[in-house]
Amino acid sequence: MTNAHGPRHVVVTSIERAPLDVVDQLAPIGTATVHEAIGRRGYLGAHLTPIQQGTKVAGNAVTVLSHPGDNGMIHAAVEQCREGDILVVANTAPSTHGMFGDLLATSLMTRGVRGLVIDAGVRDTFDLREMGFPVWSAHVGIQGTVKNTPGSVNVTIRIGDQVVNPGDVICADDDGVMVVARSESAWALDQSNARLAKEESTRAKLAAGELGLDFYGLRDKLTEMGVEWVEGLPDIPDHA
Amino acid sequence: MTNAHGPRHVVVTSIERAPLDVVDQLAPIGTATVHEAIGRRGYLGAHLTPIQQGTKVAGNAVTVLSHPGDNGMIHAAVEQCREGDILVVANTAPSTHGMFGDLLATSLMTRGVRGLVIDAGVRDTFDLREMGFPVWSAHVGIQGTVKNTPGSVNVTIRIGDQVVNPGDVICADDDGVMVVARSESAWALDQSNARLAKEESTRAKLAAGELGLDFYGLRDKLTEMGVEWVEGLPDIPDHA
Amino acid sequence: MTNAHGPRHVVVTSIERAPLDVVDQLAPIGTATVHEAIGRRGYLGAHLTPIQQGTKVAGNAVTVLSHPGDNGMIHAAVEQCREGDILVVANTAPSTHGMFGDLLATSLMTRGVRGLVIDAGVRDTFDLREMGFPVWSAHVGIQGTVKNTPGSVNVTIRIGDQVVNPGDVICADDDGVMVVARSESAWALDQSNARLAKEESTRAKLAAGELGLDFYGLRDKLTEMGVEWVEGLPDIPDHA
Amino acid sequence: MTNAHGPRHVVVTSIERAPLDVVDQLAPIGTATVHEAIGRRGYLGAHLTPIQQGTKVAGNAVTVLSHPGDNGMIHAAVEQCREGDILVVANTAPSTHGMFGDLLATSLMTRGVRGLVIDAGVRDTFDLREMGFPVWSAHVGIQGTVKNTPGSVNVTIRIGDQVVNPGDVICADDDGVMVVARSESAWALDQSNARLAKEESTRAKLAAGELGLDFYGLRDKLTEMGVEWVEGLPDIPDHA
Amino acid sequence: MTNAHGPRHVVVTSIERAPLDVVDQLAPIGTATVHEAIGRRGYLGAHLTPIQQGTKVAGNAVTVLSHPGDNGMIHAAVEQCREGDILVVANTAPSTHGMFGDLLATSLMTRGVRGLVIDAGVRDTFDLREMGFPVWSAHVGIQGTVKNTPGSVNVTIRIGDQVVNPGDVICADDDGVMVVARSESAWALDQSNARLAKEESTRAKLAAGELGLDFYGLRDKLTEMGVEWVEGLPDIPDHA
Amino acid sequence: MTNAHGPRHVVVTSIERAPLDVVDQLAPIGTATVHEAIGRRGYLGAHLTPIQQGTKVAGNAVTVLSHPGDNGMIHAAVEQCREGDILVVANTAPSTHGMFGDLLATSLMTRGVRGLVIDAGVRDTFDLREMGFPVWSAHVGIQGTVKNTPGSVNVTIRIGDQVVNPGDVICADDDGVMVVARSESAWALDQSNARLAKEESTRAKLAAGELGLDFYGLRDKLTEMGVEWVEGLPDIPDHA
Repeated sequence: MTNAHGPRHVVVTSIERAPLDVVDQLAPIGTATVHEAIGRRGYLGAHLTPIQQGTKVAGNAVTVLSHPGDNGMIHAAVEQCREGDILVVANTAPSTHGMFGDLLATSLMTRGVRGLVIDAGVRDTFDLREMGFPVWSAHVGIQGTVKNTPGSVNVTIRIGDQVVNPGDVICADDDGVMVVARSESAWALDQSNARLAKEESTRAKLAAGELGLDFYGLRDKLTEMGVEWVEGLPDIPDHA
Repeated sequence: MTNAHGPRHVVVTSIERAPLDVVDQLAPIGTATVHEAIGRRGYLGAHLTPIQQGTKVAGNAVTVLSHPGDNGMIHAAVEQCREGDILVVANTAPSTHGMFGDLLATSLMTRGVRGLVIDAGVRDTFDLREMGFPVWSAHVGIQGTVKNTPGSVNVTIRIGDQVVNPGDVICADDDGVMVVARSESAWALDQSNARLAKEESTRAKLAAGELGLDFYGLRDKLTEMGVEWVEGLPDIPDHA
Repeated sequence: MTNAHGPRHVVVTSIERAPLDVVDQLAPIGTATVHEAIGRRGYLGAHLTPIQQGTKVAGNAVTVLSHPGDNGMIHAAVEQCREGDILVVANTAPSTHGMFGDLLATSLMTRGVRGLVIDAGVRDTFDLREMGFPVWSAHVGIQGTVKNTPGSVNVTIRIGDQVVNPGDVICADDDGVMVVARSESAWALDQSNARLAKEESTRAKLAAGELGLDFYGLRDKLTEMGVEWVEGLPDIPDHA
Repeated sequence: MTNAHGPRHVVVTSIERAPLDVVDQLAPIGTATVHEAIGRRGYLGAHLTPIQQGTKVAGNAVTVLSHPGDNGMIHAAVEQCREGDILVVANTAPSTHGMFGDLLATSLMTRGVRGLVIDAGVRDTFDLREMGFPVWSAHVGIQGTVKNTPGSVNVTIRIGDQVVNPGDVICADDDGVMVVARSESAWALDQSNARLAKEESTRAKLAAGELGLDFYGLRDKLTEMGVEWVEGLPDIPDHA
Repeated sequence: MTNAHGPRHVVVTSIERAPLDVVDQLAPIGTATVHEAIGRRGYLGAHLTPIQQGTKVAGNAVTVLSHPGDNGMIHAAVEQCREGDILVVANTAPSTHGMFGDLLATSLMTRGVRGLVIDAGVRDTFDLREMGFPVWSAHVGIQGTVKNTPGSVNVTIRIGDQVVNPGDVICADDDGVMVVARSESAWALDQSNARLAKEESTRAKLAAGELGLDFYGLRDKLTEMGVEWVEGLPDIPDHA
Repeated sequence: MTNAHGPRHVVVTSIERAPLDVVDQLAPIGTATVHEAIGRRGYLGAHLTPIQQGTKVAGNAVTVLSHPGDNGMIHAAVEQCREGDILVVANTAPSTHGMFGDLLATSLMTRGVRGLVIDAGVRDTFDLREMGFPVWSAHVGIQGTVKNTPGSVNVTIRIGDQVVNPGDVICADDDGVMVVARSESAWALDQSNARLAKEESTRAKLAAGELGLDFYGLRDKLTEMGVEWVEGLPDIPDHA
């Protein structure tokens, strides 16, 4: 969005969200299973890591697009948050700043926000863990920020190779963060439950000693592709 | 420093330190708060991470400048350390070597040293955690070192974008490491205590539901900068 | 290995392994000590980090060479694993995919496999920790994989700057991963035990306040190399 | 897109493109100017660099989504290309493979394709320069690829923090690569021409010695923000 | 190799080399083609880049294993070099030092050495280009080195994911560096010539407008794997 | 520097510079030689690379400390520049923005500025090369900037592991960038000329076939350190 003077900056105050009962059922399933269930899509990338261990959450995205090292728009975003949301912050260029800390977390927790995903740095990590406010970030660092440059809240943002729209569902756990489009949330839950059931059955087979090589039909497929089972490295020439 | 044959190497045996009662009061405040309090300065960078969780320390810097992969000068530095110090090691070029382990930590602990900051690798991390010796390092790795190349102890070093002088105060916690100039330590403590009080008051307001958007005066400032609050994305042309 | 149509792909079904009683004695010694004991060799690099803390293992390597993002050959490798093995996975080019998760771990645990080393990503890390299946990986991430491209099992692979042959001993702990050649395993155990004893004696000296500077003979050596002990920075010219 | 068995893979054979007369006028303007003109949007990131120097191109995007290290879908994309296109290749996960070389370039040049943008590696760079086929890539490297895993052609892809739709306009030069949405192309050309004119006028003023500090009104703005002009560092306390 | 006091260090003075007439014929073929011809093996990785453009060389490897930032062993290696060699330098841990410059190049050129491959930094790049001495390095940088720590010449080294033995053939061009085992050199030449011929024929077909999609049989293969050719994105549900 | 409201921001209008006749003599010597001559100090790091080839410059530093992605202070710095200066820009945190382009270069060239060193991105690289304005930067990229956040001009800044003070001498060439303290400039020139002479003599010896191994006395030193010259790998046990 632009106007005569540069990019246009908006805070969108009314967004549609996915139903919380769907969101709540997605949370315990885990990112890897949901990602597989919807066709191996939605993963925000290995650069976002949790500051805590053992937490699984899901929530509706309130999105922020900021200037690097400027957290004014995160403050503007707080007002747009409600019970069941996850705040998702992108920047117009990479940032290692500590753009978020325990004060902003205090503010978000009063509104029922479930966590933060930020493609930048976070600080006060000890306090955030003590408060039980989960965070996934690209960096941990204390470099301070300013509040000088406009940005937007609740517009489409991109993190890693993914698009996040306001109201999309964010799932996050020890493995990282993924996004499910709002319009896909109910379908994604069905697919994920179906996959969970299938994984359960596969796990039982594997625990009983059955091989994936067999029940995925891989033995034949690999043979067709030229894989040979040999007892030792055969007597092949020096250049083999 | 150079002489006719190359850089000059010294072990400076008498340095001034910040008073331990000031240092001790800085420790629990936390790096993010001290960093803000002294004007957003002193942060050594996001590449230094702790090998343990939940530790906050402060101490006087004994500095080492080493050749990469050569820890002879760290041994030379032990003798210069005393109660309340933190050893801070830089290299003349990047190093991933495991330049420090549990034996050196044993030596330092007998002298009351409070921790290690090293812009290289560290090893024996399990043992270091068991011993309760805190470390912040650029890498964890076991690649062994030699003791062949001279360096210096208690000279000015640089880590990340910061200068560390011997006797400066090092503060370190789960968020990383920062330096306070020795001559600023008392002032930094005052500033930090003032900021702590302010943060406490802000936290109370935020916990009561007040918005940073309001009490920082951001609503007007953002509006002046062109941020618009809109109900939905307005009917803007396709190219918006 | 190549044939007329491209690289040759094999699953080698009979490999020699190091004796488990030797392997079992190497495990508790720790990677840093074994690495030093065998002449500072065998370290697979700082890019492989554990997903758990406090675990020390050793095992015989079953090796996999895969196409990035394709875990078909990991399934083929399961059948080749037995009690006391560690699965070691390399790719023909870098991969951040989540090539391994809790289902494959279930399969490996039924066969007595002691852990996974993978130069790629891993997922289901929460579950893997719960199951007590240790993993060292280059990434944590959920991006899903396919089963379309042939590779090999139990051939020579390279990770970091090291060669891993099937049947070599893998040692892994909080500091990372190292390899001991199968033919060297007994010798490596002797060397490691000797070094352990020496470290124990050194630790006692250091704990008693003796300085490495003295008992390593470093004070003289550093002096010869031009290091000077000075009380303060001497009166050197401005350009020193 | 998914079906019962995983992600759905399509080659879309009819896409709308931006008019070539618009595209051709965008080419010489340069990526920095177009990026500014449309509101500082569309930049694909500093990780994509040209293998040649001094080339400015623009073209309509034909998009490819591939499995890492598998270039079968690039072959499928050739047939969809026509005069004035630029091939834009993304992967489902990072890849350093040499996924493209002089043979594919030969094929594309017969169809009037103007260049390649690939978020992976490229090889035969000497030959590509000789042939005059411009390439922007994330890596240069020779690691060979396979043709085993399905993907898609002419679907929405993401590179860096940008979305590229088939038929969008790609602009690329020595500074990197940017995308202009197809629906915005005519407007972007207008905006870019307006900015060019403004830049020309600014350049004349600056060449005449006028200061940006003055004609951007920055002197007052910086003063308001607290910047002070001082003759030397004023006599500020030690802790300044 | 170790002895009682640590790793054993040797300069091996007699190594076998590949015949120069074979080496000379490999040079102009180019790294990508040789890499494919021998089964997609031997590539040293995208981190090694040339400091010049348009140079293709091949030579016999004289290998060096150094301590980071210490170039004493490179001086020791010069004496072991002869007409047709390429010096290949690895370190025991990563190094960004400028370990090689125009003086060492002068020395090597008097002995007919054809170039340098170094997994560290290089300096005097302007002079090296002027002198016509080709270099492939991991870094360009001036940080100076010492001559204090022993290493080895003409032992097995590893760079990237490859093993380089003394006397192996190194091929290098604008795309990077690869290694051909000495024992494979004649076979590799045959394979490469065969591949060159095949590439020539493929190039002719592609230049005539034939599609790889057809003559590689990919159209059927992709269809079998589920790829669909569609006119536009079909009317699939929102969650597709 | 701080005041009650945060860091203090100043534009220092009168700085001392090194004499231009000294600066001008340092330029052609080259960064590697000057770096060695002053004791292997002053190198700003391998992350700063030139956008052009074959240029050697030296000049007096005018320094800028900016907020990432905000180039207002660069405009403020122009006015402080004069004949013989080099502009050196650091940020309070990492930045990949294109903070500098051809318009600012136009402005600087009217004042006789000799080049730019920027620890961030640069754009319009084609035009900058055409204009003959040399640049060393951490990135090339077009991401646009704002002019909203105060910073400082002619204060002490840090780049890589170096401190740059206003008026220090910057030397830059194809190998990168280094700094010489203003107070050391005349001494550095003497040292550099002495080293140049020595290098010339060494070059003559090496070109005549003499070995560094001999005239640096390395043969004996390496032997003492345990390096053995052996004809082939001796008959050492398997574990050697």
